Amino acid sequence: MSQSVDSDVSVVRTYIDSHRAAFLDDLVEWLRIPSVSAQPEHATDVRRSADWLAAKLRETGFPTAEVWETPGAPAVFAEWPSADADAPTVLIYGHHDVQPAAREDGWDTEPFDPVIRANRLHARGAADDKGQVFFHTLGVRAHLAATGRTAPAVHLKMLIEGEEESGSPHFRTLVEAQAERIAADAVIVSDTGMWAEDTPTVCTGMRGLAECEIQLYGPDQDIHSGSFGGAVPNPATEIARLVAALHDEHGRVAIPGFYDGVIELTDRERELFAELPFDEERWLRTAKSTATCGEAGHTTLERIWARPTAEVNGIGGGYQGAGSKTIIPSSAMVKLSFRLVAGQNPDHIEKAVTAWAAERIPAGIRHEITFSGSTRPCLTPLDHPALQSVVRAMGRAFQQPIRHTREGGSGPAADLQEVLDAPVLFLGISVPSDGWHAPNEKVELDLLFKGVETSAYLWAELAESTHEAH
Amino acid sequence: MSQSVDSDVSVVRTYIDSHRAAFLDDLVEWLRIPSVSAQPEHATDVRRSADWLAAKLRETGFPTAEVWETPGAPAVFAEWPSADADAPTVLIYGHHDVQPAAREDGWDTEPFDPVIRANRLHARGAADDKGQVFFHTLGVRAHLAATGRTAPAVHLKMLIEGEEESGSPHFRTLVEAQAERIAADAVIVSDTGMWAEDTPTVCTGMRGLAECEIQLYGPDQDIHSGSFGGAVPNPATEIARLVAALHDEHGRVAIPGFYDGVIELTDRERELFAELPFDEERWLRTAKSTATCGEAGHTTLERIWARPTAEVNGIGGGYQGAGSKTIIPSSAMVKLSFRLVAGQNPDHIEKAVTAWAAERIPAGIRHEITFSGSTRPCLTPLDHPALQSVVRAMGRAFQQPIRHTREGGSGPAADLQEVLDAPVLFLGISVPSDGWHAPNEKVELDLLFKGVETSAYLWAELAESTHEAH
Repeated sequence: MSQSVDSDVSVVRTYIDSHRAAFLDDLVEWLRIPSVSAQPEHATDVRRSADWLAAKLRETGFPTAEVWETPGAPAVFAEWPSADADAPTVLIYGHHDVQPAAREDGWDTEPFDPVIRANRLHARGAADDKGQVFFHTLGVRAHLAATGRTAPAVHLKMLIEGEEESGSPHFRTLVEAQAERIAADAVIVSDTGMWAEDTPTVCTGMRGLAECEIQLYGPDQDIHSGSFGGAVPNPATEIARLVAALHDEHGRVAIPGFYDGVIELTDRERELFAELPFDEERWLRTAKSTATCGEAGHTTLERIWARPTAEVNGIGGGYQGAGSKTIIPSSAMVKLSFRLVAGQNPDHIEKAVTAWAAERIPAGIRHEITFSGSTRPCLTPLDHPALQSVVRAMGRAFQQPIRHTREGGSGPAADLQEVLDAPVLFLGISVPSDGWHAPNEKVELDLLFKGVETSAYLWAELAESTHEAH
Repeated sequence: MSQSVDSDVSVVRTYIDSHRAAFLDDLVEWLRIPSVSAQPEHATDVRRSADWLAAKLRETGFPTAEVWETPGAPAVFAEWPSADADAPTVLIYGHHDVQPAAREDGWDTEPFDPVIRANRLHARGAADDKGQVFFHTLGVRAHLAATGRTAPAVHLKMLIEGEEESGSPHFRTLVEAQAERIAADAVIVSDTGMWAEDTPTVCTGMRGLAECEIQLYGPDQDIHSGSFGGAVPNPATEIARLVAALHDEHGRVAIPGFYDGVIELTDRERELFAELPFDEERWLRTAKSTATCGEAGHTTLERIWARPTAEVNGIGGGYQGAGSKTIIPSSAMVKLSFRLVAGQNPDHIEKAVTAWAAERIPAGIRHEITFSGSTRPCLTPLDHPALQSVVRAMGRAFQQPIRHTREGGSGPAADLQEVLDAPVLFLGISVPSDGWHAPNEKVELDLLFKGVETSAYLWAELAESTHEAH
């Protein structure tokens, strides 16, 4: 079958245009639900978000749409079999939970009261990840409209989890338990971004993630810094010393064993990265920062896409209120996250960090390390046929050449790759300025509808490429 | 005049016993006022505390008792002239403000709802410093009862400030402006402690204090640690590096110029310290700690009394709530306090810390340093006659030999010493277990009344020693 017959561009665009308003109304409704998985007080909201999505997927046409329980927040599973029995099966992955957000963090408007300004939709979750999950609902309808089908060209499945922003602690178990129902020939992850508004790209890999909180305990209670200062260990000082020891003078992580197994970049990959139109000044504006730093011997793109890191996400201890309080605090803590690259294993990192911390903490200080959910790194071969289908679908939507990137962030894609034994492909239309995890998160409406359009073309492309491969 | 005639022990004790209940009722009433000078929301409480004290001092018999305004919290001044025109003038110094306290910090009872348990009075300020200010009110009455006087043997003045726990930012200016009215031949500071319940001591010096808050600013807002991690400076990491650089590997403060001018301990002073019955295990229990640490080459007593320090009172940045938030935080801060010893000047320390921090903070991080009120260190000669009067008055109250200590904490005594050109003597009955600045602060009632008794003997002792000196 030819592309022009199977999914005519003008039919797709006309269909999308006529359903645009209703689609946005629905997305706004979903974004109003503060499905913050990290905050226990929002547990019912995360459940409400799952119920809302399952209902909407049934309305879209999925014959099956179920809320799947986990020991934490629920996931949503939906399935829409193709009329062609021998069509390939594709699983779309995304998440319906969001990062914490509060107006006082610096939002111009309420994070869970979506607003459209200057062709952008602002809300927590607009880009990460509700917008990018939701574009498939209109995409599959446009695919049917353009091809005259009543069911997709592929057996379409969706698995939208509810704990991605909390490190997906139960996702691996869920995937293993439901491996049969979610079995697929390819996984489409819609939880990544593109290079820029004017440079559409596909992502070929994501970093993994290991997270921990280290609590240090000194005196049994806060004690007077005059009476005791200078003579007993101070847990706030010690937490700082621990953090300061995370990196060596070359910006490399100084934890013994941290780099074990790291797959180094090839010269070809470094060339591909170097070919991208990287403007450091512009990138720094997106990063809201004024200087770069990092591991010696690597470019900024290499540092954020292909090198592992250790970052402090939060640090605290002692008196943080107004004025002063001359104490030696009784405790201090740090929240660390480690981004991992292909070849690194979160279990090994956990052991390495645990041993490193235990070795460095002095007498008189008790410590506890708690690791939360980890995510494996993953990488897709550049020459995989399914990846080429994504590139073609995006090319038709964007009418531009599609370049290759990686993603510095993390997702549980590697678990799907490993358990389902299927290639993982990344389809995202978010851009760096969207402010993931930050105040005033937004999605560009033009790009959101390019996502819809790519989704409309993708199912026929994937069906075709699989048939060719057979 | 002989001690037995001038202030009979049995008369003093009988007088104190018969006024004990009323005295405690009054003190409890004062402790109910949460006069926290560091917290703006308690500004009216600090004022209420000053008004309460001025009224109570008038009731005690002071012909003059005034609330003195400052640009911050008010002080209380009271004056009771002796009938002997040529009697020496003594100024009692203390403070009526207290450290912040909240039940959730670990208090067994409400910090501003005083309770007496096991012969201890628990409340914020019980020992630091309301209890130790207040014992003089009953002390002077007992002095009059025992000597048959209608006015004290000395010209008695009290200056009780309201910003000691905030670093006394306006005290120096107040003292300079009111130098004539507070002029004295000796200053009695009642804001220190003793060695232990069974080892009464006089203190001969206090450390000074310089305090600052350093704020570091990185990205203009929190940014995603996956998208940007490893490539831009993280202010939480940088604040930790700054703290880790405070000390060298010998536990010495590594800020260039920090030790300029420090008067080192003499061999005799080190011997006197070493003669005290120091039980490290017991001291550690008081410090609620399990190990000592500090500057190499010094004992624990030397470290807390006679060596300068750098301590972290609070550190904070990024996400400190439940669960995780994978961000690079936009800012981080640390509150530092430096204890200073004789020979150090807070102004010089401020310059040294400012230069040190500016040098260490990397590109991409903006910083602000704010110094709050500082306090000079001070030291009283061991052989001063007025100090010997304090030793004798305590000896009568405690019926034990009185040993010598120093105090690791800080007070604005050095300003009084400098502006009034008068010796500063320390009279305190608090013990290390009283929990200054900590939850469950208390004062031992037996010691509180030894303080009353010492005050009852002291005025005649001082009048006599001054006459002898003349």
